[in-house]
Amino acid sequence: MKAVQVVGYHQDMVLADIPQPLVTGPLDVIVRIGGAGVCRTDLHVLEGQWAAKSNVALPYTIGHENAGWVHEVGSAVTNVAVGDKVILHPLITCGLCRACRAGDDVHCENSQFPGIDTDGGYAEYLKTTARSVVKLDDSLEPADVAALADAGLTAYHAAAKVARVTRPGDVCVIIGAGGLGHIGIQVLSAISGVTIVVVDRNPDAVALAVEVGAHHGIVADGTQVAQILELTGGHGAEAVLDFVGEGGATAEGIAMLRRAGNYFVVGYGENIDVPTIDVISTEINFIGNLVGSYNDLNELMTLAAQGKVTLHTTKYPLDDFAKALADLDAGRVRGRAILIP
Amino acid sequence: MKAVQVVGYHQDMVLADIPQPLVTGPLDVIVRIGGAGVCRTDLHVLEGQWAAKSNVALPYTIGHENAGWVHEVGSAVTNVAVGDKVILHPLITCGLCRACRAGDDVHCENSQFPGIDTDGGYAEYLKTTARSVVKLDDSLEPADVAALADAGLTAYHAAAKVARVTRPGDVCVIIGAGGLGHIGIQVLSAISGVTIVVVDRNPDAVALAVEVGAHHGIVADGTQVAQILELTGGHGAEAVLDFVGEGGATAEGIAMLRRAGNYFVVGYGENIDVPTIDVISTEINFIGNLVGSYNDLNELMTLAAQGKVTLHTTKYPLDDFAKALADLDAGRVRGRAILIP
Amino acid sequence: MKAVQVVGYHQDMVLADIPQPLVTGPLDVIVRIGGAGVCRTDLHVLEGQWAAKSNVALPYTIGHENAGWVHEVGSAVTNVAVGDKVILHPLITCGLCRACRAGDDVHCENSQFPGIDTDGGYAEYLKTTARSVVKLDDSLEPADVAALADAGLTAYHAAAKVARVTRPGDVCVIIGAGGLGHIGIQVLSAISGVTIVVVDRNPDAVALAVEVGAHHGIVADGTQVAQILELTGGHGAEAVLDFVGEGGATAEGIAMLRRAGNYFVVGYGENIDVPTIDVISTEINFIGNLVGSYNDLNELMTLAAQGKVTLHTTKYPLDDFAKALADLDAGRVRGRAILIP
Amino acid sequence: MKAVQVVGYHQDMVLADIPQPLVTGPLDVIVRIGGAGVCRTDLHVLEGQWAAKSNVALPYTIGHENAGWVHEVGSAVTNVAVGDKVILHPLITCGLCRACRAGDDVHCENSQFPGIDTDGGYAEYLKTTARSVVKLDDSLEPADVAALADAGLTAYHAAAKVARVTRPGDVCVIIGAGGLGHIGIQVLSAISGVTIVVVDRNPDAVALAVEVGAHHGIVADGTQVAQILELTGGHGAEAVLDFVGEGGATAEGIAMLRRAGNYFVVGYGENIDVPTIDVISTEINFIGNLVGSYNDLNELMTLAAQGKVTLHTTKYPLDDFAKALADLDAGRVRGRAILIP
Repeated sequence: MKAVQVVGYHQDMVLADIPQPLVTGPLDVIVRIGGAGVCRTDLHVLEGQWAAKSNVALPYTIGHENAGWVHEVGSAVTNVAVGDKVILHPLITCGLCRACRAGDDVHCENSQFPGIDTDGGYAEYLKTTARSVVKLDDSLEPADVAALADAGLTAYHAAAKVARVTRPGDVCVIIGAGGLGHIGIQVLSAISGVTIVVVDRNPDAVALAVEVGAHHGIVADGTQVAQILELTGGHGAEAVLDFVGEGGATAEGIAMLRRAGNYFVVGYGENIDVPTIDVISTEINFIGNLVGSYNDLNELMTLAAQGKVTLHTTKYPLDDFAKALADLDAGRVRGRAILIP
Repeated sequence: MKAVQVVGYHQDMVLADIPQPLVTGPLDVIVRIGGAGVCRTDLHVLEGQWAAKSNVALPYTIGHENAGWVHEVGSAVTNVAVGDKVILHPLITCGLCRACRAGDDVHCENSQFPGIDTDGGYAEYLKTTARSVVKLDDSLEPADVAALADAGLTAYHAAAKVARVTRPGDVCVIIGAGGLGHIGIQVLSAISGVTIVVVDRNPDAVALAVEVGAHHGIVADGTQVAQILELTGGHGAEAVLDFVGEGGATAEGIAMLRRAGNYFVVGYGENIDVPTIDVISTEINFIGNLVGSYNDLNELMTLAAQGKVTLHTTKYPLDDFAKALADLDAGRVRGRAILIP
Repeated sequence: MKAVQVVGYHQDMVLADIPQPLVTGPLDVIVRIGGAGVCRTDLHVLEGQWAAKSNVALPYTIGHENAGWVHEVGSAVTNVAVGDKVILHPLITCGLCRACRAGDDVHCENSQFPGIDTDGGYAEYLKTTARSVVKLDDSLEPADVAALADAGLTAYHAAAKVARVTRPGDVCVIIGAGGLGHIGIQVLSAISGVTIVVVDRNPDAVALAVEVGAHHGIVADGTQVAQILELTGGHGAEAVLDFVGEGGATAEGIAMLRRAGNYFVVGYGENIDVPTIDVISTEINFIGNLVGSYNDLNELMTLAAQGKVTLHTTKYPLDDFAKALADLDAGRVRGRAILIP
Repeated sequence: MKAVQVVGYHQDMVLADIPQPLVTGPLDVIVRIGGAGVCRTDLHVLEGQWAAKSNVALPYTIGHENAGWVHEVGSAVTNVAVGDKVILHPLITCGLCRACRAGDDVHCENSQFPGIDTDGGYAEYLKTTARSVVKLDDSLEPADVAALADAGLTAYHAAAKVARVTRPGDVCVIIGAGGLGHIGIQVLSAISGVTIVVVDRNPDAVALAVEVGAHHGIVADGTQVAQILELTGGHGAEAVLDFVGEGGATAEGIAMLRRAGNYFVVGYGENIDVPTIDVISTEINFIGNLVGSYNDLNELMTLAAQGKVTLHTTKYPLDDFAKALADLDAGRVRGRAILIP
């Protein structure tokens, strides 16, 4: 089958012809890829940023946001059947460790991450397990939702935590009106009564954020902290959902936070660097956020099927992977780029 | 009446004769002081560290850990009567703001803090309100529990949060085996099934911590992180309860934390300085902790009455306040120093 | 001032001329009534159903759903000022008992209930306290929201509990598409991602419920349990929110519930009569619901100001109270009847 | 191998010689039984009470509280190895349904129940899966803990729920000082600060309950409700944990409950029959309780290894199963009867 592989860091990826994956274990599921999201992480993989962490042997197939159709199943698979439309949870998890047994499969002690440390979805077929496939509603197409598998799932997971600790009248500041920010806004609109205020440097992104559901949009021009304080009667926001995490975002975000507020860290890059006396005297919390669980992905797909979360995509044939990556790198993609085998 | 007052920063306090406080408002309560805790914060007040923050007008009476007997009550006071033994919540709160109405009176938008920004308890009488007095069980004496009013309440509040997110078999590392640490250990022993591991530089303090209920004691000799990891099968602890917050405690504490773990910040001094990528890739949380609520103080007094939380105290007559402060400063007090008017 | 009073049970109420209430305590607030909801409970009061329970001395003024303008305040009132538009929490609470201190003021150990056990709002003025007045947004008028003070607050309180235990894709069956049902639907739509299914015997009510936000409407014609099971793949609903509580509603509602589901009891009349073996073998819960807290009312007013919760009202001059009650009794009121002094 | 089988309802069980179970699936685990609890349910099985519900084909092997040593494992089993000491979660669960993926494996949509609907542990060997085996600490022996697998796990699960909603000073009434009651008392003592009051008709059982940790013991002589009310200042208890569920226990238990209290249903037999108006006017909840999850069993084994939960057992050789059952039926067993193959 065709697969886009990393053959060396800082080298062009190549479209290789490799053997199609086969079922070898009882819970294996082979998925025929319908769409694979092209993500900034893929560029970072090529730059070798994940090499030490993933320890993956080259060559291997990248692509960690995948959806498609079930092509073949192992003998013990009972939750999907050949032909089912599915989206893939980004992790392959063991199901037996304490975290998996608590429904917190993201912290599985024995997980694999296709596209990062094993073969991913820039290919015609991908091998995963029964534990990672979420059936899609008839109304959804794999290529339209693939990009929700990782980035979208992360935004959902964090926004759902915000929803659990806020009430009508509370304010949630969303820092960053990019891809994750848009999903976050749509999710918060769908499942909570919180007032959503988006902050971004890009006026167009802010305008678009307001279109998809933010109640207030603030262009970050140096007055953003003051604007949040004014909007909240001087108190600050009950929640800050930070999809940026660099370039000074955390210091500003902390300044926007109300006493007893919660700061949700999603974006990364810089350090949180905050005096402990400020943490205790205002009794604020910092909440880390990784990707969501299997059930989180199920819930996000429900919102997608209900039309409450949508994603703009630009589709490329798998053969045009190099153009898709180049367009992403150059900022030429509207919404998310998706490879279609 | 007699009262110990701050008359100037970096000056000795003086034992003054000032008018006894009177009931002026309907919810006012005048308490005859039975014991006032002598706290390191009192030394900091004298050094002027709180001057800008509290903006208190000098001279004023210090002492923020107070207990005694109700001496006089305003017309609208229904929860205590003259003669009742009481401990005082450290804050005077409004009862009308959103935080107060949620039971979260520590974040009251209009609070006063006797001993810090208004007259405190190094005196024969103190004026507070009905909202700040917790009735004591017959078995408890004001002078024995006064020091639980602030330091103890802070430890209780944080330990109770730990209890809510841990299960039997989980490990809570307590950094710092001092006064707050001892209360924290006793509280966790009383209300949770968590395994308690205490870390401190002082071998005597560690030994004492094990005596009052810690399951493991570790002397911080540079191997403490490695010891915690070994003790937890390489995973780290589900919770770290940091009563130190300086001298490198936070970096070490973070290194002791398990994926998806919670770091409870109580002690302060240094900055939390942690890469956002570490926060999100391990999905850890930092939880700020201020003093507890009125109901928290009630619960702590229940534990004290049940004999589950005890405090060693050294009592001084009010007139010997200077000796008590000097002893504290010199590290000569065993347990907590209490002034008795 | 004018006031509608109960002068005897099973007797017509009378429009009396009584003294205007005065501030006597420091936290008292006198409200000039802008609107008072006419509620079925008012009919029950007149029938003497509350006589033993309330032990109120006749004559007294009824009306327990009130909103208006602050007319006079006691010396210690800081949260509202003369002229403010306010809605009244139905209870007058003490602020000092354990429940009040936990934000759970509905379980105040020393509460009064204007319109039930003390003078209510079918009058030009009403006396309450600072703890019971919630300021209204400029966009809201007292007469438009008065009926949310009790019935609406109850529906909000229960729906907010549903929101906390459900996720997107979960189903909440609402039994009863009357006044509370409509508020419940609007609240769930505003603050949760749950799928809302309304069941009622009245096809018009079901149609209207779907208009205000229910995702599915089922006319109770004997097949309603089967329809819910079919709609939920045979599993039943994660939550049932029962605004009826009589006429067999509870048995049907239990049959609609999924394993580990939650049954929210709001309406009343019949008994819950369920074998303990069914409770434990399916591990279902029954959750009681009384009126909401002060903060709940604040949150509901936020939703009202945001236009997310609206109420159809029919207004009557206070002098026409008898007609309003008669219309209610005869089922001639569209939406809620409101008396305007 | 030897196995005790049900060959017909209302007939004596027989000790049969049947083939030893073999690994057939990748996650299968064969356990050499070290101890099997003899439970009243086993008597009910023989009486045919479970026949319709379980639909099990006769003959089959009973015994649903099992512990032993891993004898053989399937190819995909990674969490235990041959020779490991294990206790068995009572259910075999699928790991793929929504409930399993949430850590709520008790509500698995595809579970089996060895000893009830498939072969159980009154035998030399039993077949289960990797998802049902919890490794034991070196300090624990299978025969000593086997009876915790079902009855103990149920008590732990319910007591852990009580712990989550109570605080120091709150009162939990435990109705029933039998086997489950004793586990419940030990668990609450170990993981919560609640005050435990035990109510039972049998004075000896009450005395023993106080010995294992109950703070108050009340012999049910008709004054028990009055005694609870007196002990709680007339308010009632914050929690009632009912291990009886018949003979009028629920009506009495409800009368013992405080406003906003929680009633935990564990024992069964009679109906809960309560007016909805009582449920809503006091805002009480009824919480169903089935057996605990896999992680719950893990936590209970932690408490057992820590010596915080112990069980008195009387051991019988497997061949003497008839005597063990007869002794149980006649009330001659002290603690729990355990069969040892």
